[in-house]
Amino acid sequence: MSAWLDRVRWDENGLVPVIAQDAESGEVLMLAWMNRAALEATVVSGQAVYWSRSRGRLWRKGESSGHTQRVRAILLDCDADAIVLKVEQVGGIACHTGRRSCFYQRLNDGSWETVVPVLKEPESIYGGGSSDE
Amino acid sequence: MSAWLDRVRWDENGLVPVIAQDAESGEVLMLAWMNRAALEATVVSGQAVYWSRSRGRLWRKGESSGHTQRVRAILLDCDADAIVLKVEQVGGIACHTGRRSCFYQRLNDGSWETVVPVLKEPESIYGGGSSDE
Repeated sequence: MSAWLDRVRWDENGLVPVIAQDAESGEVLMLAWMNRAALEATVVSGQAVYWSRSRGRLWRKGESSGHTQRVRAILLDCDADAIVLKVEQVGGIACHTGRRSCFYQRLNDGSWETVVPVLKEPESIYGGGSSDE
Repeated sequence: MSAWLDRVRWDENGLVPVIAQDAESGEVLMLAWMNRAALEATVVSGQAVYWSRSRGRLWRKGESSGHTQRVRAILLDCDADAIVLKVEQVGGIACHTGRRSCFYQRLNDGSWETVVPVLKEPESIYGGGSSDE
């Protein structure tokens, strides 16, 4: 069952950038990375599994926060080196800062301005422990 | 005017992945890359300018196709290593294959299925010359 995995043009580190997009609203939630094992685990489980570059291990989105992502569709681009995941974001919070989306800073007149509110304080998401995402 | 540019966490090649999203429909159009000069040129011109990794030069999106991208907003993520550009896609075609979006292959039962139609044949976009994007 690896022909579809071979179609992906993995980069020199064996990774591909993955855009998680809210399947309903179309909002871009985050950009993360997958290796072959992560993409396979995502397909098998129906939940987003990424490769954490900082921790060097597979990371099931929401494994500590509970904010998992149910995968509705997986799309590959024309040159097969980027993926879009259309997801249902459980809990409505994708960002470890407690925001709906990680893309909450908007360039305005030469500075980055925060434009997306915090819905839940990180302490209450992660219970004072370290965040997983 | 470089403080906002310094906020971006450029990767080891001096690049950051950029998600171009249709400002109206929310559709993800493409993923490309920018270096500092590309991001600066994008802000100054109000049109998307990327760094072409294959050609090793700045590339104004649409420079040969006419399918430029007018930038409506530039968003940075929580760890400052990914950008979303909200754009108005001139001509309604972002992909060099003549499709609205580059993400036209959907994983279905172990194979990638084309799910987005060609709106315009590439030959008629690029006049038989090589595509720029």
